Amino acid sequence: MCPSPDIQDVDRGYIVPIGGAEDRTDQPVILRRFAELAGGRQARIVVIPTASQLQDTGQQYVAVFQAMGVAEAISMPINQRADGDNPDHLDSLNQATGIFITGGNQLRLSTILGGTAVAQTIRQRNAQGVHIAGTSAGAAIMPEHMIAGGESGATPTEDQVQIAPGLGLTNQVVIDQHFRERDRLGRLMAALSYNPFLLGLGVDEDTAAFIGPDGRIEVLGSGAITVVDPSEVSYSSMASVRAGDPISLFGIRVHILAQGTGFDLNQRTPFVNATTR
Amino acid sequence: MCPSPDIQDVDRGYIVPIGGAEDRTDQPVILRRFAELAGGRQARIVVIPTASQLQDTGQQYVAVFQAMGVAEAISMPINQRADGDNPDHLDSLNQATGIFITGGNQLRLSTILGGTAVAQTIRQRNAQGVHIAGTSAGAAIMPEHMIAGGESGATPTEDQVQIAPGLGLTNQVVIDQHFRERDRLGRLMAALSYNPFLLGLGVDEDTAAFIGPDGRIEVLGSGAITVVDPSEVSYSSMASVRAGDPISLFGIRVHILAQGTGFDLNQRTPFVNATTR
Repeated sequence: MCPSPDIQDVDRGYIVPIGGAEDRTDQPVILRRFAELAGGRQARIVVIPTASQLQDTGQQYVAVFQAMGVAEAISMPINQRADGDNPDHLDSLNQATGIFITGGNQLRLSTILGGTAVAQTIRQRNAQGVHIAGTSAGAAIMPEHMIAGGESGATPTEDQVQIAPGLGLTNQVVIDQHFRERDRLGRLMAALSYNPFLLGLGVDEDTAAFIGPDGRIEVLGSGAITVVDPSEVSYSSMASVRAGDPISLFGIRVHILAQGTGFDLNQRTPFVNATTR
Repeated sequence: MCPSPDIQDVDRGYIVPIGGAEDRTDQPVILRRFAELAGGRQARIVVIPTASQLQDTGQQYVAVFQAMGVAEAISMPINQRADGDNPDHLDSLNQATGIFITGGNQLRLSTILGGTAVAQTIRQRNAQGVHIAGTSAGAAIMPEHMIAGGESGATPTEDQVQIAPGLGLTNQVVIDQHFRERDRLGRLMAALSYNPFLLGLGVDEDTAAFIGPDGRIEVLGSGAITVVDPSEVSYSSMASVRAGDPISLFGIRVHILAQGTGFDLNQRTPFVNATTR
């Protein structure tokens, strides 16, 4: 699915993939920044806990956002495909200033939400300026092409990664999460080797990419974001190797971005924030 | 330590770092290629088991090379620094056509061998055309600067890697091993971020880089070699971050090289072997 079209004179909302395991209690800098972006004391945040099979995941995030003093935070129960067409849910989304997608299993998100009115409304609201964050599975689901699963390891192999259609909030990047913690560079490279038009974003735990409407990414959190740019790849053996064999890839560009740095998706160049330089 | 100087009209020997866990029984393609390079039925191979604390490591490799039909294979016991000046050992090295350094702990290699006549003779023999292979710790020890230890993880951090002086067979590369299996890209990048004049070679298990006297690397084995080229790095936060913090690094070039490909160290360019293209 592609992003909802731009609306004239309206800035799109931020897209905020988080690598999972973000601090919710001690120094919740990522969640606080998201709540502020969504309006602070005026923020109305909808939490979508569909990826999780734990009963209280949605309510835990609601409590965190309420403690930050937002105007409203609700958890939206979507456990089967029929829930994705519930008109009450669409009303809530149409009043939201921020939407937060929890972690869990991204295949629950794609199989339950995919093609529903809720999914379409999330895309439309983002085009209308509503900010959307997702953590772990909630981050993986965001792009047009999502990493549905795969093996760990630094060296890409032919059958290492499974790709599935995602929510379609962006078609500039593929997102992987728990990146450093679960050793996922190989599978991200494997995902990009299928078709090098995309950029790969590998997001560490407790780390977020705040992707603005201008295509500029700002990094926040205690880990780093690994940007994998295959646009100068001069050779890939992906089409000729056997299943399980390592892939040869020449000329991948990698940037490691910690807090204080960022990346311009349109220019494909990293930058150091003026304030932290 | 720097490599022993070139000798006029004499080709240096190959340097063959192996990522560990190379096949020794079923399809020992790496060890066989090394034995052939060292002269096949005329080969005289010295095995240096110093890194290992197991009694039979040296004899196991001797048996493998003998089964391949080499003229001679011996294990050279060097367990304390005094052994490194034993004239009998120097005689054996001066008759060898190939020297093989086993795995174990690279700090045993550097602390026991470093600065001995054996270490100097190994460098001189390589300049005289003798081929030197090392697996795991035996691969790590080969360069001027060796990775002595460090943590796993894809994202480099400030205190992730410890560097120590190595054997000095090459000063063009830093070598890490068990690369994919132990998730070592972060620490290899951290090692390079100290001083980007080096290239990093991350060698997977059962995979070898045959580095010829012309600086061309040929890849052999079932895994891949990750070449990390920091020569175009435009920004590094290494000098300013706190211990344990992630490092920002812009513009790292990465090549993944499986069998059938290679890399020219002098040109810093990967290539596909003509025969496998």
